[in-house]
Amino acid sequence: MGRGNLSPDEIVRLEAGAVVLLDQRRLPDEEVELRCESAAEVADAIRTLAVRGAPAIGVAAAYGYALAAAHGEDLGAAYRVLADSRPTAVNLVWALEQMRDDPSPERARALHVAEVDRCKRMGAHAAALFGPGTKALTHCNAGGLATGGYGSAVGALRAAWEDGLLAHVWVDETRPLLQGSRLTAWELEALGIPHAVIADSAAAHLMSRGEIDCIVTGADRIAANGDSANKIGTYGLAVAAAHHRIPLYVVAPTSTVDHATATGAGIPIEERDGAEITARFPARNPAFDVTPAALIAAIVTEEGVHRAPYEASLPR
Amino acid sequence: MGRGNLSPDEIVRLEAGAVVLLDQRRLPDEEVELRCESAAEVADAIRTLAVRGAPAIGVAAAYGYALAAAHGEDLGAAYRVLADSRPTAVNLVWALEQMRDDPSPERARALHVAEVDRCKRMGAHAAALFGPGTKALTHCNAGGLATGGYGSAVGALRAAWEDGLLAHVWVDETRPLLQGSRLTAWELEALGIPHAVIADSAAAHLMSRGEIDCIVTGADRIAANGDSANKIGTYGLAVAAAHHRIPLYVVAPTSTVDHATATGAGIPIEERDGAEITARFPARNPAFDVTPAALIAAIVTEEGVHRAPYEASLPR
Repeated sequence: MGRGNLSPDEIVRLEAGAVVLLDQRRLPDEEVELRCESAAEVADAIRTLAVRGAPAIGVAAAYGYALAAAHGEDLGAAYRVLADSRPTAVNLVWALEQMRDDPSPERARALHVAEVDRCKRMGAHAAALFGPGTKALTHCNAGGLATGGYGSAVGALRAAWEDGLLAHVWVDETRPLLQGSRLTAWELEALGIPHAVIADSAAAHLMSRGEIDCIVTGADRIAANGDSANKIGTYGLAVAAAHHRIPLYVVAPTSTVDHATATGAGIPIEERDGAEITARFPARNPAFDVTPAALIAAIVTEEGVHRAPYEASLPR
Repeated sequence: MGRGNLSPDEIVRLEAGAVVLLDQRRLPDEEVELRCESAAEVADAIRTLAVRGAPAIGVAAAYGYALAAAHGEDLGAAYRVLADSRPTAVNLVWALEQMRDDPSPERARALHVAEVDRCKRMGAHAAALFGPGTKALTHCNAGGLATGGYGSAVGALRAAWEDGLLAHVWVDETRPLLQGSRLTAWELEALGIPHAVIADSAAAHLMSRGEIDCIVTGADRIAANGDSANKIGTYGLAVAAAHHRIPLYVVAPTSTVDHATATGAGIPIEERDGAEITARFPARNPAFDVTPAALIAAIVTEEGVHRAPYEASLPR
């Protein structure tokens, strides 16, 4: 397996009788595959974060639905267990809707290929926003692991790096589950892109010292007005970026846009077990936050670079 | 030992032949004392964070200097090794200066007693800033462990709690060394104050939801204009607090004020080993940041509540 620089099939694929996925909980220490032999097992893998990242869980759910169809499972039950596995991501339901009229392995595979292709288009659009010598910051993992290949925010960094525009990437470690220091750093190392991990709370300090030129993140759900839900901490980054007049770019496929939700206030925020933070003392663990559109410099999809007002500019 | 609700002697004291201190690196799992038998061993304890918190390291250094005098060590060398053990805190040098003309155990003890007394006065001043039912957030540990007893920011919370003004405390876990989830939560539990630990990056999200009424932190050094250096992450909190019109109060003894440093730009920022964040990938680990005076609602010392312009209001 190419450390970090994974092919889409190495991240998630459908085999005879199982959805096979790289267990992201065990990275970077171990590269172990997990076999899910039913839609419920795929849902468990999504719920427990063996596979995470909004586009990747959409792809995994599509494969899980195709698996359920091949096994003659009750497809209504398969749909519900998969759709309920994570509350914030909208691609999950989007992917399942794509599968309804043709729950075939080929359809799921086509969805996967299209997701990776969208990432490459997003990357090209986003890289055009970078000036020479850019020092970028990213939060969580919006890399190939999160999208089933290539990556959304990391895809933008890849494209900017290939274009010679990227000098350095700061990687928020992303507490509590450390997707930044475990997954994004692992991907950037494989790609040969210069990077350093920081404590999430150090980002504002680095902004104040002129060490960050732009921020790129993914999104789990984008409301019609551009308000974007993403990993907890993105909102604080956006506030600090606005204070320092640093652009924050959201890079996400159009499947992330939820036109049925008018604003971020309508996006459910998953609250996860406080034990992810500390098993010893009471804890509160919101897993996502919402960044108001006013704090987002641009939203980049595979269709292009969209600016406010997002109600008009986001593709339908 | 009273879990978390420690007497000053349980945190740091001078015995015949040694400075004895509670090893804060092993809390909350183990309550273990560390014996330092020379000034150099006290400096090591400070450098490796067995004792941390600006006032507490000043007290430990004073005891270490008294120990060196009792042992007939070279006092110039003892001064230098202690003064150089942490770069950001100014109380450290202040405490050593207090010891120069009388390096006796009694003098060190008097310094310690005065530090705790100052905390109680700060607590009373700061509690007067709290409205009824306040939900406060604190960062790092500015508790009894950090000051040699009672606490500065935690002292303010204790006083507000005793006055019936405090409803809840959010505790930033404070990466990378988790002083919040290890030390502050441990102290608040012992004090019976309702609290929950959060990932540092969740603070802005809770502000946006109206769940935080004020922020209280300590400080490691306060420039003449009020710019305050404190644990990395304080600056980001201050930016987010300003965005949400939430007051941030710095609670620190007058010994923290460095009138010789005009602004925060003159405060050295300690950069610690990146391995505190991740041993596996490159990392950057600034341990402190500087919060501009413009983002601080008030600085509270044992002398009272000081407002901008701080050049005029901070006690000399």
